[in-house]
Amino acid sequence: MARPREELARSPSPQEHLDAVAKLLAKRRLVEDLVHRQGERDNRRPELVEDLVHRQQVAAIGKRLEGLHPGDVAYILEGLPLDDRLVAWGLVSEERRGDVLLEAADSVRETLIADMDSAQIVGAAEYLDADEIADLAPDLPDEVVQDILEAQDDEDRAQLQSALSYPEGTVGALMDFEVVSIRDDVTCEVALRYLRRYEELPSQTDALFVVDRVDHLKGALPLKRLLVSDPEVEISTLYDRDILSFSPESEADDAAHAFERYDLVSAPVVDVRGKIVGRVTVESVLEFVRERQEAQALGKVGLREEEDLFSSVWASAKNRGPWLALNLCTAFVASRVVGAFEGSIEKLAALAALMPIVAGIGGNSGNQTTTLIVRSLALGQVSPSNARRLLLKELAVATANGVIWGGVLGIVAWLLYRNVALGGVMALAMLLNLLVAALAGIFIPLAMERFGRDPAVGSSVFLTFVTDSMGFFIFLGLATVFLL
Amino acid sequence: MARPREELARSPSPQEHLDAVAKLLAKRRLVEDLVHRQGERDNRRPELVEDLVHRQQVAAIGKRLEGLHPGDVAYILEGLPLDDRLVAWGLVSEERRGDVLLEAADSVRETLIADMDSAQIVGAAEYLDADEIADLAPDLPDEVVQDILEAQDDEDRAQLQSALSYPEGTVGALMDFEVVSIRDDVTCEVALRYLRRYEELPSQTDALFVVDRVDHLKGALPLKRLLVSDPEVEISTLYDRDILSFSPESEADDAAHAFERYDLVSAPVVDVRGKIVGRVTVESVLEFVRERQEAQALGKVGLREEEDLFSSVWASAKNRGPWLALNLCTAFVASRVVGAFEGSIEKLAALAALMPIVAGIGGNSGNQTTTLIVRSLALGQVSPSNARRLLLKELAVATANGVIWGGVLGIVAWLLYRNVALGGVMALAMLLNLLVAALAGIFIPLAMERFGRDPAVGSSVFLTFVTDSMGFFIFLGLATVFLL
Repeated sequence: MARPREELARSPSPQEHLDAVAKLLAKRRLVEDLVHRQGERDNRRPELVEDLVHRQQVAAIGKRLEGLHPGDVAYILEGLPLDDRLVAWGLVSEERRGDVLLEAADSVRETLIADMDSAQIVGAAEYLDADEIADLAPDLPDEVVQDILEAQDDEDRAQLQSALSYPEGTVGALMDFEVVSIRDDVTCEVALRYLRRYEELPSQTDALFVVDRVDHLKGALPLKRLLVSDPEVEISTLYDRDILSFSPESEADDAAHAFERYDLVSAPVVDVRGKIVGRVTVESVLEFVRERQEAQALGKVGLREEEDLFSSVWASAKNRGPWLALNLCTAFVASRVVGAFEGSIEKLAALAALMPIVAGIGGNSGNQTTTLIVRSLALGQVSPSNARRLLLKELAVATANGVIWGGVLGIVAWLLYRNVALGGVMALAMLLNLLVAALAGIFIPLAMERFGRDPAVGSSVFLTFVTDSMGFFIFLGLATVFLL
Repeated sequence: MARPREELARSPSPQEHLDAVAKLLAKRRLVEDLVHRQGERDNRRPELVEDLVHRQQVAAIGKRLEGLHPGDVAYILEGLPLDDRLVAWGLVSEERRGDVLLEAADSVRETLIADMDSAQIVGAAEYLDADEIADLAPDLPDEVVQDILEAQDDEDRAQLQSALSYPEGTVGALMDFEVVSIRDDVTCEVALRYLRRYEELPSQTDALFVVDRVDHLKGALPLKRLLVSDPEVEISTLYDRDILSFSPESEADDAAHAFERYDLVSAPVVDVRGKIVGRVTVESVLEFVRERQEAQALGKVGLREEEDLFSSVWASAKNRGPWLALNLCTAFVASRVVGAFEGSIEKLAALAALMPIVAGIGGNSGNQTTTLIVRSLALGQVSPSNARRLLLKELAVATANGVIWGGVLGIVAWLLYRNVALGGVMALAMLLNLLVAALAGIFIPLAMERFGRDPAVGSSVFLTFVTDSMGFFIFLGLATVFLL
């Protein structure tokens, strides 16, 4: 990243700011320690000296933070250990605290909120819009949310209540209320005069929403068209009537797809009667896409949330434990499958060495199928009409891979153990387990989708469970029948 | 999604369009078949009747496609089997084909391009901007790219060559050339007059880039500020000087973070001398974020690209084979580790039943660590100064989990096999393999990052390899030493 030449030097990156603040904090701690120890040795009270040094250091850090975008401040706070983080947080002014909280990662946000009393939170909330407060609300104590509601004036309170009412994943949860609308029976001249009454138009305003007398949406007039139009012309001859709008209950994911497909910057949200209730901006869409991406990456390995780099060991163990416990249960069941064949293994220990290959490759292949199905589900490409075709194709691909790789492994097993029958069992077990993997790889995500769970997140545990247990069962079962 | 009330009914969704076109195509095929068979039976040439029916059907499909956004046309083509897809593709007019290709998924794009001769491709390219052609170029035959270059006028050719020169993942590959810039020594009035000469401003133009006499970037003037400003005022008193700009070589990922953090709609791209060479829009950023997200999800399970729902079995097997082969190799090595302990397993077959649990939980736990490290790497939060802290924390979490879950499993193994020593070995092996998993979970993504590979994509194969092999080795080794 670079800034215009005018500024001579490149502005520091967020990382550089973080390093600088971390150094200032370290220096402060060092000085504090020294003064403290000196005071102890001299048996004098060190407050006066400390106070002076302290105030200097603190002023330097505060000044640095003041000039930064709230997103950069959040980044710095995320990169600091808890004690330093809270020192820095104390230097962020009340009117900027809300914006910083909005930008901070969930786990870090929790530590910052925990450091504020309810009056401070209510104070910081006064500088936020209703949709922003709603974004923070899940992390706030219920009684603080009540306090915030009571501190609002009537209009703001109504907006906030509306924003709080939409569940995550809906357009209502994405939308804000910074709608600039205009009647369609005026000229561009009048529209421009109206806009000049704004000190500054809301961020990401690329169009005016055109409404009738009772605020029903009729279309949109892009600002860039207004700019290049003759002032005498009536709005009604200029605006787009065929625009996309959303209802607050629409799925946020559909909105994200539409924003990407149609290159939108903002889009109106209307209620069932066609009245504008808010707008969605590309900024909130981009944030939504990124956050979901992150939640899915974490969810795939069973993490409920990202971890603060500096969180306690205990908090981390709690975040990761349930997943390990679940996997322990599925692994235990697979282990009992093997246990049922202990007699066979005692007679031919080679089975124990070969069985993880059959199970493992099944898991790999099934995860490929699941990943492709999850993608198709997300794009709405899986329909009853092509489900059969998909199934047949996956079974065919599994057969092809099973013949090829099962064959390779069968030959390897044969050569390794000088046992043709063992090679044959290996090859057949691979083929069968790949077919099982294909079936499970299709049906598990479809079933999760049917039951309203995100198939991108939970499919792989169940899949691995099936391919492990069935892989062991098929291989050891065939071996018991044909080899012993 | 809903559209304004004015239109009375809800516009159909892309899925509904797809269903409608699929039905029209099916009807067409049916009629064609009937006519054909009738013709055969009557021993007459069926062309005339067929022609008439055919033209009717085709007109209906063509009309339907014509009214749709290129993104929706691409969606429909993706949802059709190859033969139907090419019929529909033949009905897309030349001036819209480029836009549809841009929106189509890679695998489907390939099938569409394969259906065009080079004259058609060059013709379609004439309706695209330089940056759009550059996006398509990797999928085009080299000689066609040459033909397209030759067909351009000088300015366009220079832009196209510049666009082609930036590797994927850089800002240069994201940027377009639709820059609207203005000198800083004019009034708003003059700026507005200048803008009126445009028929329509480029999509996603939210600001004019302010430049000096030699096109060096000085700042930006948001359109919304221009709108609400007095026409008499000079631009120089209005524009933002402290704006973010990128160099074409910057990483696209950094740009994406900046767009999200600072809520940008567009940002200028400047060369080393500070001259504007293009701009990045939030549209291209959103597309980049989504595409990378998808590529990572696919890459994690070893898929080089998404698969066309209707691709051949052979193409699919080729797409998935290399990953299975790689996993086969690592599984084989792990299998040889077990093979080395076949003597122990013959004496105590319970080892074969328990060993997959030790290996599996190690893999799960290591993948959690890796996922968190990959996230921290992406956010630039891993520095030499906190690497040690991270390592200690992960080892501590692994120890906590190892003591808890190793203890649980140890007791289960003891009760199941009535063998205290076996339980002890199980618990100790779990603890040790979780520590191995923590080390591998940290070092593998760091090493991949160091060697310039995407740690989000390839880490898990190596990790599973380590946790499987080491899990088997630790458990069977301990068992051999203490139990036999």
